[in-house]
Amino acid sequence: MPQPFAADSVGLVTAQTLHFDTPLELACGRVLDEYDLVVETYGELNADKSNAVLICHALSGNHHAAGYYSEDDKKPGWWDNYIGPGKPIDTNQFFVVSLNNLGGCHGSTGPKSINPATGKPWGRDFPPLRVRDWVHSQARLADHLGIEQWAAVVGGSLGGMQAMRWALEYPDRLRYCVVIASAMKLTAQNIAFNETARQAIQTDPNYRDGHYLDEDTYPKGGLSIARMIGHITYLSDDGMGQKFGRELRSGSFQQGIDEPVEFQIESYLRHQGNVFSDVFDANTYLLMTKALDYFDLAREYGDNPVAAFQGAKCKFLVVSFTTDWRFSPERSREIVNALIGADKQVSYAEVESEYGHDAFLIPIERYYSLFQRYMGNIASEIQGQSS
Amino acid sequence: MPQPFAADSVGLVTAQTLHFDTPLELACGRVLDEYDLVVETYGELNADKSNAVLICHALSGNHHAAGYYSEDDKKPGWWDNYIGPGKPIDTNQFFVVSLNNLGGCHGSTGPKSINPATGKPWGRDFPPLRVRDWVHSQARLADHLGIEQWAAVVGGSLGGMQAMRWALEYPDRLRYCVVIASAMKLTAQNIAFNETARQAIQTDPNYRDGHYLDEDTYPKGGLSIARMIGHITYLSDDGMGQKFGRELRSGSFQQGIDEPVEFQIESYLRHQGNVFSDVFDANTYLLMTKALDYFDLAREYGDNPVAAFQGAKCKFLVVSFTTDWRFSPERSREIVNALIGADKQVSYAEVESEYGHDAFLIPIERYYSLFQRYMGNIASEIQGQSS
Repeated sequence: MPQPFAADSVGLVTAQTLHFDTPLELACGRVLDEYDLVVETYGELNADKSNAVLICHALSGNHHAAGYYSEDDKKPGWWDNYIGPGKPIDTNQFFVVSLNNLGGCHGSTGPKSINPATGKPWGRDFPPLRVRDWVHSQARLADHLGIEQWAAVVGGSLGGMQAMRWALEYPDRLRYCVVIASAMKLTAQNIAFNETARQAIQTDPNYRDGHYLDEDTYPKGGLSIARMIGHITYLSDDGMGQKFGRELRSGSFQQGIDEPVEFQIESYLRHQGNVFSDVFDANTYLLMTKALDYFDLAREYGDNPVAAFQGAKCKFLVVSFTTDWRFSPERSREIVNALIGADKQVSYAEVESEYGHDAFLIPIERYYSLFQRYMGNIASEIQGQSS
Repeated sequence: MPQPFAADSVGLVTAQTLHFDTPLELACGRVLDEYDLVVETYGELNADKSNAVLICHALSGNHHAAGYYSEDDKKPGWWDNYIGPGKPIDTNQFFVVSLNNLGGCHGSTGPKSINPATGKPWGRDFPPLRVRDWVHSQARLADHLGIEQWAAVVGGSLGGMQAMRWALEYPDRLRYCVVIASAMKLTAQNIAFNETARQAIQTDPNYRDGHYLDEDTYPKGGLSIARMIGHITYLSDDGMGQKFGRELRSGSFQQGIDEPVEFQIESYLRHQGNVFSDVFDANTYLLMTKALDYFDLAREYGDNPVAAFQGAKCKFLVVSFTTDWRFSPERSREIVNALIGADKQVSYAEVESEYGHDAFLIPIERYYSLFQRYMGNIASEIQGQSS
């Protein structure tokens, strides 16, 4: 019988729901008395529990980072390119933990969950979250799994913000911090795009002040627009040009033809918006973009990033991509400069790529090989200390 | 009595509506039997009618390019910085003609006008327009004014596209062509932003398939989102950062405060969207963005821009701005290279500016002075030939 999955795939995976009943105090001042986190793990935890890697997801991510849910499953997890046996995050070496963050819409407690106080979905009444809240809930998850220290905390984009916050909040609980295509804080332009996306959702008449689930409606149109805006900013101008150019989906571009002409990029974007708005929750989108906007690594350190990183004890890998204009290489260099200023060990790579911000998800030779080498060194270090 | 307006202002202006009843055949194959154009003029036409300058407006522009409508009028026309006595487009030297393009929503025949066939507003049934249609209607306007040849046709952004098309369609009817912050065609990313804006309008339930005027509704929400998207792309990332940074409008950014935090950029953008959607017509916005997307200067010249410009007889000034990422300097250099390839006279300036695409509207010293000198030379040339 042929193997249904490639040799470097983690193959079939199952998500599990973990329940936490110790109240979690949030940055906003409110308290979540209990909550669920949906988790997937790949690989085996070693005897001294030193080989665990935490994957932090980005804006629209979830716990399903690698593998397949069934043999017919067409699409693997979102970071399957980088997680698996022999891949950079090598499941022969590491015990990989991936969760759906609190406030998410894929099973972890969030706006779609029932608010115990009302018996109805939280909707927009779900507490606003900050990146640090996710980090605290992830620390509880580590406790639950018996993991005292992560071999590495790894994340791209919003996930990289979580990884950096880990280094500041729990300096003893991670050896390595991998920050990919991220930033210490958003620019005004980033916030502007996020706000426009939020407005598209909130002005959709079906948004119903955030209680659409109660009223059995859904702001699908607004969420589609939000996703289209996001999607443009994840791709580079050049990459988009190479992929779509001004190619027409069909029809004619002749004069004298009064027919709607449609460029491929148009139907592609509409399709992306449409698919996304079928599977994602609008309130979660609002919550996640707000967490992005709020994030400001050095704010409580007198806006001094060097001071912010002073207490960190882990080593850092920072990666950026040339055509990423949402989290440009300049933002990564700011992180690197702050780490150097704070006398931390940091490796940095700016990877040539045409894929814009999305590059962190895509197999790119130089990125793949440097990431593999870096993670391989971590695996060797752990093995050396375990044996 | 003190003068109510500055010495370099054109002062009080009045718009006039001109009616055209010779049918205009459009690029789409349909015919407009008659139409109105709303026009403003500044300065005096000289005896041999050689000093006329045509101003072509951009996406959201109109005929009111300079001056004031009353002594209490707070806001002058959209290009008042550059049109007036002693300004680059010097109304002591030139007779300046500015119109609201066909399909517009400020008085010229467009989607808000009554369709004679139905007695109701055209709405989305108004014929789709191409840049060449505007140029043809502007040529009729020149005929009406007795202007055989423009001293210059001048435009920024979509206006620059009209100026270039003039040089190709009516090579004998302009001496100079001034193309500012423009492009020979949009990139896929440009089209993507336009399409997202259109989707925001068209999925607004109040859009009513484009017949909102009939049904006494208005897709204000969708048009606001469209404008917000546009506005972000008109500004530069750095410029936005310098103007707004991460400054808060009010409220607190402390932990433990469960209050909505709002960045200044957010309220600014919402305000922009709100104001614009009160005064602009949604169908005109769709029509204008489609004309932008369709524009492809060299398409019918075998995609060869050099061949496209071959028949042009005027001289060219091309201007771009360093932080303009909507119509980047690269796009302007493509125009310049094509003109050089076609052996045309062209001057080019790439102006340092932090204002993104909006720079073409803003007083910037180097831009102002080179524009002034260029136009001054044109004025001298005309005077030399008239005398």
